[in-house]
Amino acid sequence: MKLEELGEFGLIERIRKGLPKSDDFLGVGDDCAIIPCGDKELLVSVDTLIEGVHFLKDTDPYLLGRKSLSVNISDIAAMAGLPKWAFLSLSLNKSRDVSWIDTFMSGFLDIAKEFNVFLLGGDTTSSDVLTISVTIIGENEKGGSIKRSGAKVGDLVAVTGRIGCSYAGLLALENGFRKYNELKLTHLNPYPKVKEALLIKEYATAMIDISDGLVQDCNHICEESGVGMKLYWERIPFCYADFVNKEDMLCGGEDYELVVCFDRKFEDKVKDLDGFTIIGEVVQGSRVSVLKDGIDVELNNCGFKHF
Amino acid sequence: MKLEELGEFGLIERIRKGLPKSDDFLGVGDDCAIIPCGDKELLVSVDTLIEGVHFLKDTDPYLLGRKSLSVNISDIAAMAGLPKWAFLSLSLNKSRDVSWIDTFMSGFLDIAKEFNVFLLGGDTTSSDVLTISVTIIGENEKGGSIKRSGAKVGDLVAVTGRIGCSYAGLLALENGFRKYNELKLTHLNPYPKVKEALLIKEYATAMIDISDGLVQDCNHICEESGVGMKLYWERIPFCYADFVNKEDMLCGGEDYELVVCFDRKFEDKVKDLDGFTIIGEVVQGSRVSVLKDGIDVELNNCGFKHF
Repeated sequence: MKLEELGEFGLIERIRKGLPKSDDFLGVGDDCAIIPCGDKELLVSVDTLIEGVHFLKDTDPYLLGRKSLSVNISDIAAMAGLPKWAFLSLSLNKSRDVSWIDTFMSGFLDIAKEFNVFLLGGDTTSSDVLTISVTIIGENEKGGSIKRSGAKVGDLVAVTGRIGCSYAGLLALENGFRKYNELKLTHLNPYPKVKEALLIKEYATAMIDISDGLVQDCNHICEESGVGMKLYWERIPFCYADFVNKEDMLCGGEDYELVVCFDRKFEDKVKDLDGFTIIGEVVQGSRVSVLKDGIDVELNNCGFKHF
Repeated sequence: MKLEELGEFGLIERIRKGLPKSDDFLGVGDDCAIIPCGDKELLVSVDTLIEGVHFLKDTDPYLLGRKSLSVNISDIAAMAGLPKWAFLSLSLNKSRDVSWIDTFMSGFLDIAKEFNVFLLGGDTTSSDVLTISVTIIGENEKGGSIKRSGAKVGDLVAVTGRIGCSYAGLLALENGFRKYNELKLTHLNPYPKVKEALLIKEYATAMIDISDGLVQDCNHICEESGVGMKLYWERIPFCYADFVNKEDMLCGGEDYELVVCFDRKFEDKVKDLDGFTIIGEVVQGSRVSVLKDGIDVELNNCGFKHF
């Protein structure tokens, strides 16, 4: 069997099944792993970005440097933690210009500084395919991390920001549209929602960041929590981008916004929080459905998969 | 300027210069970074292996899985820590056979089990170049890690195992030699010296594992400690491999043995330890010299560099 037949999530599940488990730590299956550390817990996540897969060949190196770290910081935000330390593995062609690397690093270190993250190490290797792998370590008070697995039937579901702007920006870039600079920047320069996560942390039962697409990431919460979810089309804060249809916005990845479930007794509290929109509720079941005028929206082949 | 003009260590130094420092942690410049963690400290290291650069295209996937983790465990050993948790980022072509991945994973998980390491997460992405990036986290009691920077003039220098067998094995593989299976396995299946590191930990002032080659890695200790080093040719436990000249054994990488400096008052103690050979001493200066019948051996272009 070829990898493309098994699929990305099939591969992850296949690997996960072979792993020993323990109550001492949280392994595969969330935005971060959780490692005990005295009266705190550490959050660890790894993301790899590959030229031609995760970013276009002529992507601005400053923005690429920022994004390489931002997407990792977003994983820490998704657990309601504070990002602390980063490790960067850069695989580069030896004929690459050093000025490109300098610009990449200045982007990486700028976003690091904004979030008080220190680059502590990594690896540099030669490769014909530009590959950037970042490991981030964050921290939280013991038991303070919000997992994907805590959603309960009856919870409400909220999101930060707007949905689909990154996908719209990607389309604008790929099609060479001259305008839509703001959308392009949403795609190229996402800003991790660390602050928002801390605002909603005390109410949250489950959280994830939107990397694969709203629907697919909500499905990840459903799988890990053993629940279903109903999202209401009319309430979803779609991106303002008239050249993209809204179904695709639900499936496009890389919003790096947060999806959060919380007990509905906190509805008024969450409504008062800046930047959150309540879009649905947790129900019995196993999947997400999106309802438009009360009817299920068909979303086939939704979300980014590598294989 | 192209990357190949700057060189690998030039690149690392260039990045390192731009990084903020703090007494709270140890960053770039050792086998692992050190992060505080209550009454312990965590050790973190990242290594990336690329097909065609770090391993040949038809490398046995079981052995490759083992080695992918072993070389990281070796970094923890180099700081005299205990390996604990691992993260694996696998970038694969979508047409790759799933059975290849299964075999790779069984090698990875076998060595993990041998060292009581748990795989907690990672990333899977599609790429035309097989790229394996492993992050390992180990631990030590607070202040217990042995750094590259602690060598003192007057210390003695010891190594574990034999020097040059991995390089000899690589030559045997590249040239398609039928025999020399044991040497080939030293290259393909290195065994990290965690146990040996714990044996010598109480005497050690500085330590490193041999990944770039004996001479180059000793030079790393010299740079970080601000010392020189004299190694005595006659005392070096060269590999038994008559088709390789000994100068090349000093420069060939991937032995994954340990080089350790220690106060000479512990000479008798170290002589009693299994598996260590005393090969030289720490002197004033800034580089390693290897003396054969009292004369400096010329070692040009010594050690593996990526760019």
